[in-house]
Amino acid sequence: MDFMKPETVLDLANIRQSLVRMEDTIVFDLIERSQFFSSPSVYEKNKFSIPNFDGTFLDWALLQMEIAHSQIRRYEAPDETPFFPDSIKAPILPPINYPKILASYSDEINVNDEIMKFYVEDIVPKVSCKEGDQLENLGSASTCDIECLQAISRRIHFGKFVAEAKYVNDKPLYIKLILARDVKGIEDSITNSAVEAKILERLVVKAQSYGVDPSLRFGTNVQSKVKPEVIAQLYKKWIIPLTKKVEVDYLLRRLEDEDKEVIDKYR
Amino acid sequence: MDFMKPETVLDLANIRQSLVRMEDTIVFDLIERSQFFSSPSVYEKNKFSIPNFDGTFLDWALLQMEIAHSQIRRYEAPDETPFFPDSIKAPILPPINYPKILASYSDEINVNDEIMKFYVEDIVPKVSCKEGDQLENLGSASTCDIECLQAISRRIHFGKFVAEAKYVNDKPLYIKLILARDVKGIEDSITNSAVEAKILERLVVKAQSYGVDPSLRFGTNVQSKVKPEVIAQLYKKWIIPLTKKVEVDYLLRRLEDEDKEVIDKYR
Repeated sequence: MDFMKPETVLDLANIRQSLVRMEDTIVFDLIERSQFFSSPSVYEKNKFSIPNFDGTFLDWALLQMEIAHSQIRRYEAPDETPFFPDSIKAPILPPINYPKILASYSDEINVNDEIMKFYVEDIVPKVSCKEGDQLENLGSASTCDIECLQAISRRIHFGKFVAEAKYVNDKPLYIKLILARDVKGIEDSITNSAVEAKILERLVVKAQSYGVDPSLRFGTNVQSKVKPEVIAQLYKKWIIPLTKKVEVDYLLRRLEDEDKEVIDKYR
Repeated sequence: MDFMKPETVLDLANIRQSLVRMEDTIVFDLIERSQFFSSPSVYEKNKFSIPNFDGTFLDWALLQMEIAHSQIRRYEAPDETPFFPDSIKAPILPPINYPKILASYSDEINVNDEIMKFYVEDIVPKVSCKEGDQLENLGSASTCDIECLQAISRRIHFGKFVAEAKYVNDKPLYIKLILARDVKGIEDSITNSAVEAKILERLVVKAQSYGVDPSLRFGTNVQSKVKPEVIAQLYKKWIIPLTKKVEVDYLLRRLEDEDKEVIDKYR
């Protein structure tokens, strides 16, 4: 995806290709997380007394990462959404001046709190290799968590590009739906059940392929590092619905960033 | 690997299993890096003017990560070796008090400078998708570099556990070799050509399996994200020889940490 060329970014075929590639990253990251225990201490608020900090150990570690990454311009990119938007720092590098692709309020569409919640409550217990804490691996577990959270967040917020592309491709339809606050109509217009079924199918194959040492594949008792159905469930239950929420939230506000005469034309 | 139980850590079968698992991480990380351009600006000293810093952009980004990770105890673990040992910070968590597994000088065996050099000069050009800079992805490329470097460093320095296990299993042999400063003899004793050939074979299969979208596997013109032979070469040319260097360097100093009467017995 080349954000310097807005016309390529809003091509739905390119967006789909990026989304497919992100599946690999998410599967890889969950496989890496599966090496460690569930590590509940990492997710318990103020379990460790960290000076001047109120939150979980994971929050603190993620915040450190975001501070470092913000300085190397991570959150200037339109496809990156911080978990702590109020605490990140200014880049130490000159700004990139991305061309405008998304609406000006785009950064305000941020579902990272919901991502953190389902990830900790529903995903970690299912992908970790064993229940409980393993004191010396709390740091490793949280480092993997950060990778997983960032990859999932990028995937879900990519819905903004899908929404923008659909809006630009059919302004008459969307302006009518938005003016009517027709959430159901917007949802229907962005839903493609055949594509969703295909995603789930492909994820199972990817989890099987990437999650088994291929040199052992024909042995007996070979186990996937992460259960393929857990990854399919993650998409079905969380990633696909939250992506749609991002798309709907983005579209509902889209007229804030549209010319008055264009809106009036379809009113 | 459970570092709280030294007897399991020094079991060569467990060490081998860990080394095999690390191959997956290294292959995953290189595949992630392959999404980005070679990005030479990232590796050029003082290309960007970073306040109070003398080094490359990658050095700076890696240092920020190490500072954050040191605070969550990463470098207390006996299998983690920092690239900037003089700049890391004390953990904000209570210390873990690992049982002693490696010799007391173990942290001084650090080949990270060599790892950085071959990674930047030889690996990046071969795994990146295209030659040149892509301004808006310098941060992403360096973030992937950090993952690759840390995974490769962990793999190579794991040689310390191999060396310690071999030493403990055959003190008479090693004490004689060490007293005679017989580097060639030590090298021969730690080399297993059949195992090395098997590693290279397995890596090619892993790179093929993990580097291709499995749902496309039976299409035409399917390309691996990273050339399998590049990963095999990385092991053959760099990882295996440097692991041996770590083992030899570790063993050559091993008597610094041995009882005098044990040494005298085999003198």
